[in-house]
Amino acid sequence: MRWIAARAVRCEIVAIGSELLLGAVDTNSAWLSEHLAAIGVDCHHHSTVGDNTGRIAGALEVALSRSDAVITTGGLGPTQDDVTREAIALLMGVPLEKDPLVEEALRARHLARGTEMTPNNLRQAEVPRGAQIIPQTLGSAPGLHCLVAGKPVYALPGVPREMKEMASQTVFPDLVRQAGSGAIASRTLRTFGVSESALAARLSDYYDRLGQEGSNPTLAFLASAAEGVKVRITAKAASAAGAESLLEEHEQALRSLLGEAVFGLGDVGLEDAAAAGLCAHGLSLGLAESVTGGLVSSRLVSVPGASGWYRGAVVSYDSAVKYSLLGVAEGPVVTERAAVEMAQGAIKVLGSQVGLSLTGVAGPGGQEGMAPGTVFLAVVGPGDKESLRKLSLPGNRETIRELAASWALWSLHCHLLDL
Amino acid sequence: MRWIAARAVRCEIVAIGSELLLGAVDTNSAWLSEHLAAIGVDCHHHSTVGDNTGRIAGALEVALSRSDAVITTGGLGPTQDDVTREAIALLMGVPLEKDPLVEEALRARHLARGTEMTPNNLRQAEVPRGAQIIPQTLGSAPGLHCLVAGKPVYALPGVPREMKEMASQTVFPDLVRQAGSGAIASRTLRTFGVSESALAARLSDYYDRLGQEGSNPTLAFLASAAEGVKVRITAKAASAAGAESLLEEHEQALRSLLGEAVFGLGDVGLEDAAAAGLCAHGLSLGLAESVTGGLVSSRLVSVPGASGWYRGAVVSYDSAVKYSLLGVAEGPVVTERAAVEMAQGAIKVLGSQVGLSLTGVAGPGGQEGMAPGTVFLAVVGPGDKESLRKLSLPGNRETIRELAASWALWSLHCHLLDL
Repeated sequence: MRWIAARAVRCEIVAIGSELLLGAVDTNSAWLSEHLAAIGVDCHHHSTVGDNTGRIAGALEVALSRSDAVITTGGLGPTQDDVTREAIALLMGVPLEKDPLVEEALRARHLARGTEMTPNNLRQAEVPRGAQIIPQTLGSAPGLHCLVAGKPVYALPGVPREMKEMASQTVFPDLVRQAGSGAIASRTLRTFGVSESALAARLSDYYDRLGQEGSNPTLAFLASAAEGVKVRITAKAASAAGAESLLEEHEQALRSLLGEAVFGLGDVGLEDAAAAGLCAHGLSLGLAESVTGGLVSSRLVSVPGASGWYRGAVVSYDSAVKYSLLGVAEGPVVTERAAVEMAQGAIKVLGSQVGLSLTGVAGPGGQEGMAPGTVFLAVVGPGDKESLRKLSLPGNRETIRELAASWALWSLHCHLLDL
Repeated sequence: MRWIAARAVRCEIVAIGSELLLGAVDTNSAWLSEHLAAIGVDCHHHSTVGDNTGRIAGALEVALSRSDAVITTGGLGPTQDDVTREAIALLMGVPLEKDPLVEEALRARHLARGTEMTPNNLRQAEVPRGAQIIPQTLGSAPGLHCLVAGKPVYALPGVPREMKEMASQTVFPDLVRQAGSGAIASRTLRTFGVSESALAARLSDYYDRLGQEGSNPTLAFLASAAEGVKVRITAKAASAAGAESLLEEHEQALRSLLGEAVFGLGDVGLEDAAAAGLCAHGLSLGLAESVTGGLVSSRLVSVPGASGWYRGAVVSYDSAVKYSLLGVAEGPVVTERAAVEMAQGAIKVLGSQVGLSLTGVAGPGGQEGMAPGTVFLAVVGPGDKESLRKLSLPGNRETIRELAASWALWSLHCHLLDL
């Protein structure tokens, strides 16, 4: 049930950078793909090439032969090995020319930072004749919007936040305009705790109703174990306001069907949802984790403003630390009771109003007769409010830890919703 | 010892899976690239396509036109959307045939696990006529070694650990054999705490000497801020023993030039190096971290056997926790003194022989007049042995935290070396 645009725009991605051919992981292509799908643009191919003019031009030719548009990332830096500009100019059959406005912006940037402007830096002001500039506000190299044989090539920097800004501000709106099919908008509901197939089952009536309405909006699922299932609603309408209002209506319908499985929208994480709950109630948090070894804590401190509500954590990896520091009664530690006592201990020693705890077995071997993947979670406070959960998680040590951390954050979120 | 090719074989990677075109990150291509480089195989291109027979075949044709060999990942599962087998058979111009040995292995696997064998599962026993099987020991789908127009296509599963096993056991040795005679081997020294340019400067005389010996072995650097700089030595010789002895000689020469900057070989992490030091001296560790919020702890527990030497951590995110729980004297907490008191506090409350601590400012704003990136590290114990370090780290919050965690683990490693 996927909406096909009046004219389906196909856009592919060419990632440029020799480091990507030596072991660096390309996260830019994944991000771009996900966001292209959200605006209804088909992305059927990614390719990756090193910093080599001929190979970049070759990859672009192959891409342009299959698609309506190409986004490149990387190769726009100041050094001699950054040759994306040269490769595009070669394909366009035009020279590179210094753009006076870009040069001025580069000089102003260096002046403001008190850094010296070298001839290399000026390479970033060189633009294939006829190309349009995609403004750069976070870094130094502007993006380029070029036409090669009538098709657009958007050249973006390899630095993720610069790339994301230019894609969101300039490239995606431009691709939507190319589709020439009115307004498209999408919204992603983030869910946790329910499998993709269980979600689909809960939504089966809703699906049927959608079908009768002519498949607008459409729904798509994207599952990732540790981050839950994303449910993306994509709506088209004659106007942006029309698409937004359709999204709003269906977001509410889905929320009422999915209940507490929905923890947020878009790029929000489980840690953000939990943090929002703490802020909403003006509560502080103390954490006691063992099986996850610090993972839950590091996710919590990644939330901007965590110092306003996060007291800290005790990572009680050794059982002796559970007994001596957290006040857990001596005995088995992979139990519901130990989880509750850990959360109570966290409140006490860290001076918080809410305590969150995890205790369990990451494997590979069992512990206290419990199989790997057995994890007990507790959330305690404010007062005597208590939530408990027992998990049997699949996977290896690393997967079990990641899943347990996500379940802990989600449990905290649910506990706070219930207050 | 890792084998490397004597004449440059060009191999490219085709990642297969619709999820990769919807937002999932492809880590397989990065891993394969890094390991191909280590055996001297040139990888100039990656490409990614969805689960579509025509597009997979198209991507393979493009890849085979540019390279001597192709590795594919993904699309070998049991469901109807896994069509890598079909695409390769199409290119070979042969039918798929059920392989009786693979079928038997699949039946045995299901029997052993008590799961039902469905007709879909049997799809994994289908093999293009003339293809060789690459044995599967961890999962269910075997890999395939096929010849398309005289060039090898290695089809591997998308599950990382299955893919890595088949690549290491079968594909890499086969690519090296293709390269012809002579032995080439490589070894990677892991360094930390010294920049790539400073390393190159320290090795300049060594480089000159290498030049006179005819560039054998060769050196290559691969820098990654949080993991340090990798120095790869690649040696050629008539025999494997000869290459190995050349590597041994030059590893020792490099170690003596680089001193404590070298913390290990190959895939070892800073946490492994620190853990080895603790084990060697039979010491236990307690940790107190604030700016890194749990990151150091989660890296430590990722080391197999951590429960033998790791007591746990106090994440004293709030200053009040530093005072009340760790016994830091009230006052400024981004100081050398606070770091020492945190480490001493960790030893005391966690019951360890060695204490490691970090306190600092991740930003974006400053704290106590200190700029973001200011971090104090302390390692205390056994007894009154003490190591201190002040860092001024570049980057945003996340980068500062990752770098600080690596510096802390490296400091612990160096402290233990000095015992």
